[in-house]
Amino acid sequence: MVSDDYLALSPETMAARLGTLPVMRSLVGDPALWRISEVGDGNLNLVFIVTGPAGAVIVKQALPYVRLVGESWPLPLSRTFFEYHALTRQQARDPGSVPTVHHFDDRQALIVMEYLADHIILRHGLIAGITYPGLGVRLGQFAARTLFRGSDLSMKAAARKADLGLFSANVAMCDITESLVFSDPYFAAPMNRHTPGLDGIVAQLRADTALKTTAQDLKWAFATQAETMLHGDLHTGSVMVSATGVRVIDPEFATYGPIGFDVGMMIANFLMAYGSQPGHGADRGDYGNWILTVVTEIWATFAATFADLWQTERTGMLYEATLFEDQGHGDAARAACAARLTAIWRDALGFCGIEMHRRILGLAHNADFEQIADIPLRADCERRSLLLGRELALGRHSVPDIAAVLDLTRRINARG
Amino acid sequence: MVSDDYLALSPETMAARLGTLPVMRSLVGDPALWRISEVGDGNLNLVFIVTGPAGAVIVKQALPYVRLVGESWPLPLSRTFFEYHALTRQQARDPGSVPTVHHFDDRQALIVMEYLADHIILRHGLIAGITYPGLGVRLGQFAARTLFRGSDLSMKAAARKADLGLFSANVAMCDITESLVFSDPYFAAPMNRHTPGLDGIVAQLRADTALKTTAQDLKWAFATQAETMLHGDLHTGSVMVSATGVRVIDPEFATYGPIGFDVGMMIANFLMAYGSQPGHGADRGDYGNWILTVVTEIWATFAATFADLWQTERTGMLYEATLFEDQGHGDAARAACAARLTAIWRDALGFCGIEMHRRILGLAHNADFEQIADIPLRADCERRSLLLGRELALGRHSVPDIAAVLDLTRRINARG
Repeated sequence: MVSDDYLALSPETMAARLGTLPVMRSLVGDPALWRISEVGDGNLNLVFIVTGPAGAVIVKQALPYVRLVGESWPLPLSRTFFEYHALTRQQARDPGSVPTVHHFDDRQALIVMEYLADHIILRHGLIAGITYPGLGVRLGQFAARTLFRGSDLSMKAAARKADLGLFSANVAMCDITESLVFSDPYFAAPMNRHTPGLDGIVAQLRADTALKTTAQDLKWAFATQAETMLHGDLHTGSVMVSATGVRVIDPEFATYGPIGFDVGMMIANFLMAYGSQPGHGADRGDYGNWILTVVTEIWATFAATFADLWQTERTGMLYEATLFEDQGHGDAARAACAARLTAIWRDALGFCGIEMHRRILGLAHNADFEQIADIPLRADCERRSLLLGRELALGRHSVPDIAAVLDLTRRINARG
Repeated sequence: MVSDDYLALSPETMAARLGTLPVMRSLVGDPALWRISEVGDGNLNLVFIVTGPAGAVIVKQALPYVRLVGESWPLPLSRTFFEYHALTRQQARDPGSVPTVHHFDDRQALIVMEYLADHIILRHGLIAGITYPGLGVRLGQFAARTLFRGSDLSMKAAARKADLGLFSANVAMCDITESLVFSDPYFAAPMNRHTPGLDGIVAQLRADTALKTTAQDLKWAFATQAETMLHGDLHTGSVMVSATGVRVIDPEFATYGPIGFDVGMMIANFLMAYGSQPGHGADRGDYGNWILTVVTEIWATFAATFADLWQTERTGMLYEATLFEDQGHGDAARAACAARLTAIWRDALGFCGIEMHRRILGLAHNADFEQIADIPLRADCERRSLLLGRELALGRHSVPDIAAVLDLTRRINARG
């Protein structure tokens, strides 16, 4: 899929290599006047802002290894292919939710996309204590629209199976999730690390066979429940925000998986942002409560939007109107939707809990905790999130609703 | 995948067209001496026995339409491609369980395979009242070995995902299952038919919203639970038997789906064979009870073999020994296997019930019932199987074990 002539871009070579692209000339302008900065702060890729007289774009290029780890961990360039196909589908399923793609070069594993000038990474905004009105609503809509519209509830079966086949090749990225999220945190895997002070609870969690089994049950679900095209890495570092805008980025982990996965991951990262509040100063006032209202909004909006799409866009082969509404059995179709949302809720809680563990015990940590300089305080915050993660994962059949999640979150994080 | 030069074989053209194949010359002998008979009695394909001085082979060729319906229902020749890939995988996963493949011609959609001289279709044997010692054990082994070894419990993730992608293209065959099994029986679909005398119960079942919703929940499971490579059509017409041998044939419906699907379909067809007994004469003695012992053997052997493979061949990414046995938590791994078998059981009961409905209400009926000439008696047998199917599908969370299934089967089929 990617050719031998791949070469990583640099600010120095950018104009020579991309300066002849019509899209770069029209959107950025004369290459002689380009200003280029490399801004990639993620774990995997090169990200450049290219600015010129006509405007600015993002040039994102995959590296043939995991940037966070180095060349010792090779990673296929093909992930850009999957990111491109995910971005274009998300754009179609929820217009305006992702950066516009201007150009895709499979051979060079690069995408030229919209530069979101006034946006910052949501996680940085949360750490800085900024509130974003409507954030939870927008994220809930994004989840419902992309997940519903990528499933057999909406798509024609042949189109969905074609996409299932396409994304089934995203093996290396799935392997990262499969190993780093579901398995490594629960034994002494080489790439794990955790904050000093957590040894006790780490040992406790690794001895907890109910928890380990639950994590593997969820790994089974991730690997086998090919319900819809997931973003696959929907955390607060994969969202960009401005005062008025919300965009979701970085879907290179896209794969067919359980609807609850994206929703659960996203909620987990807000719960960790909440749990990190004591480490970000005593003057945050009501910010923690605002974070929890976002969690409520995400789930409530997701569920309401999903139920609305179920009623208005159920054009796939599942729960066909022929069998329900056309027979005067619309009530049964609505009940089936509620039952489906209950199953999604259960999955989401499980994935939420496991995500909280892997971000504290595994390889890829969250800045929310990492930026707490006071190590014992950081460990205390993380310990509470670990406990909360365990309660949610093991309680996925019994924690009834989002209010119960917030009660649990407040209780476990309460100081004193 | 299939070329424009495809041409259906006939006894007259066989020698000219296949006579130069080395495999035909060595296994059958001089084409001038071939004797050819067309024996396809299934719904889809041409099947020839080609006999010569050196021996005999089966030549199976797809037709570009559904044989049962005619040219008005086109069906891609590519199903032979999927049958070939399924047969070779089943042979590797359970050696000796399927006919040996001698030759595959993708362009002509044909497979030359082993001729099972002394075998007959199991369904015909059951209608004739013949017992086959060890049948249930062999079928249970086949199910456990092929289903376990095609899953992420056994395969490397990349290989399983490659197969998921490969079989995701078997769209037309899945569409048959998705429509004919899960939806058509529950409304007045054009191709449905049922025995006179069943109108009352048919109306009752189609008004039963709990049942329709369950059927759609199972369709969701079939379409999304990509757990393993299924045979996809594992009924008693897809099994050939002799006094000592059992072979499974016709896997052109192969797709990734829920482990419980094949098991449930197979059990359903034995339960219908049992239910058809009153139509096959008063002198059958204990034959019905023998059929039920086969059902017990199928499930017991499936579960025991699956659990044994879980302990001895769990080489995939799920429930890794690293997390369990290596940490002294072997008990938890065994408990996880038991829980997985419970989930498979639940799925299998659901698919079993739905299969019993579609074979009586849909397009493709079973000879077990069809050969009952006494129409009121046939209807009575079918009505009982419809009721049993409903109890199993709706009771999939509550019917605890195979003994309970047999109790229910005996109770519902009891005359008087």
